[in-house]
Amino acid sequence: MENKTKKTIIVFSGDLDKAMAAFIIANGAAAMGDEVTMFFTFWGLNILRKAQKIRAKKSFLQGMFGGMMPRGAGRLGLSKMNFGGMGAKMMKMVMKQQNVTSLEELIATAKEQGIKMVACTMSMGVMGFKEEELIDGLEFAGVASYLGEADEANVNLFI
Amino acid sequence: MENKTKKTIIVFSGDLDKAMAAFIIANGAAAMGDEVTMFFTFWGLNILRKAQKIRAKKSFLQGMFGGMMPRGAGRLGLSKMNFGGMGAKMMKMVMKQQNVTSLEELIATAKEQGIKMVACTMSMGVMGFKEEELIDGLEFAGVASYLGEADEANVNLFI
Amino acid sequence: MENKTKKTIIVFSGDLDKAMAAFIIANGAAAMGDEVTMFFTFWGLNILRKAQKIRAKKSFLQGMFGGMMPRGAGRLGLSKMNFGGMGAKMMKMVMKQQNVTSLEELIATAKEQGIKMVACTMSMGVMGFKEEELIDGLEFAGVASYLGEADEANVNLFI
Repeated sequence: MENKTKKTIIVFSGDLDKAMAAFIIANGAAAMGDEVTMFFTFWGLNILRKAQKIRAKKSFLQGMFGGMMPRGAGRLGLSKMNFGGMGAKMMKMVMKQQNVTSLEELIATAKEQGIKMVACTMSMGVMGFKEEELIDGLEFAGVASYLGEADEANVNLFI
Repeated sequence: MENKTKKTIIVFSGDLDKAMAAFIIANGAAAMGDEVTMFFTFWGLNILRKAQKIRAKKSFLQGMFGGMMPRGAGRLGLSKMNFGGMGAKMMKMVMKQQNVTSLEELIATAKEQGIKMVACTMSMGVMGFKEEELIDGLEFAGVASYLGEADEANVNLFI
Repeated sequence: MENKTKKTIIVFSGDLDKAMAAFIIANGAAAMGDEVTMFFTFWGLNILRKAQKIRAKKSFLQGMFGGMMPRGAGRLGLSKMNFGGMGAKMMKMVMKQQNVTSLEELIATAKEQGIKMVACTMSMGVMGFKEEELIDGLEFAGVASYLGEADEANVNLFI
């Protein structure tokens, strides 16, 4: 059954600006009483990484990928005009000036609001991310789980 | 109530190619009798900037952002193979050869067809864009307004 | 009439990672009994190119575009960390280690499962791609066809 109060968002991108857009939409919907599920896949998993380095068994290539990708919401770059991180820093400063909630706060709010955050297990396998490397409170599932939820939702976005 | 004749598009990207895709879909739907709402957010706001420089009160960082981002539909780059603007120029030439409507014309058609174009006020705050810097005929609203419209639509895209 | 078993995906991107995401979702839905239509437009057409060079009449600019863009699923780059193709190679190696199906196999499965793959004729005109340059088994249509299908689907993504 379609449910007017359900939304799903696939978070494929690991860019700060797109991650913010995803969480702003998700939190807005949850605040309006909607049930929201976010599926983090590919680069989107970087948003969920813990900031500290966690030891985990990986293949050489997975270790390289992991070492090159940002560890968590605090280290993401912009999709445009990043200039080696300068752009992201500037964007965060402007957002603070404008009293826009930071990505870290948006994620905390999402958890408080009961938004279901799902990490794609297949992508975790490819990237070599273990559950203990990702923030707490996640669920772990694959594409079939996403499709089941999308069938019940009335808005489904890919970001 | 879901409405078979309603569509929403979030235009997050400010790339020429993605902007064209968004307007081609939007105009196509409007031509078929659909009600269409486009929400412009983040880089997507660049599509709506007036070509001429408008004086407006901005913070230093907002001024820098504004100065570095393209002013309007005529100055956007491609998401791929832009080569400092060369790619976008070539793409426009090929499109002209192929009698594909230009982005400027697509925007004019969208207005004529009564497509609702909404600029995201939160993003305007971050980017430092004032209403007078954007083209005429826009509405101004936030995420709650988007979600209300998406609930009534049967196709919702994020571009 | 909305159909719980219908999905559409616009494949705008020609990046390996996004193409894989699109086909994994599409194949997952088809495996669950859904009817799936994929619309390939702009850079997404590169995914459908045959690997071998095909002679076709093109304008000078179209020839340039065609020469610079990857010929088919085997030559796509990553949307991030591509490093001139190194990133894509590494990603493919990790995927093989993890027994993740390759893009070429995903496309073959999509065909076997009867997923409708549609090449956008307007984009083909712009890029200068002829039908004989693209893989077999495609349909050819424009935005009106997409909108007609999206109206019947309950999940519509833009990738």
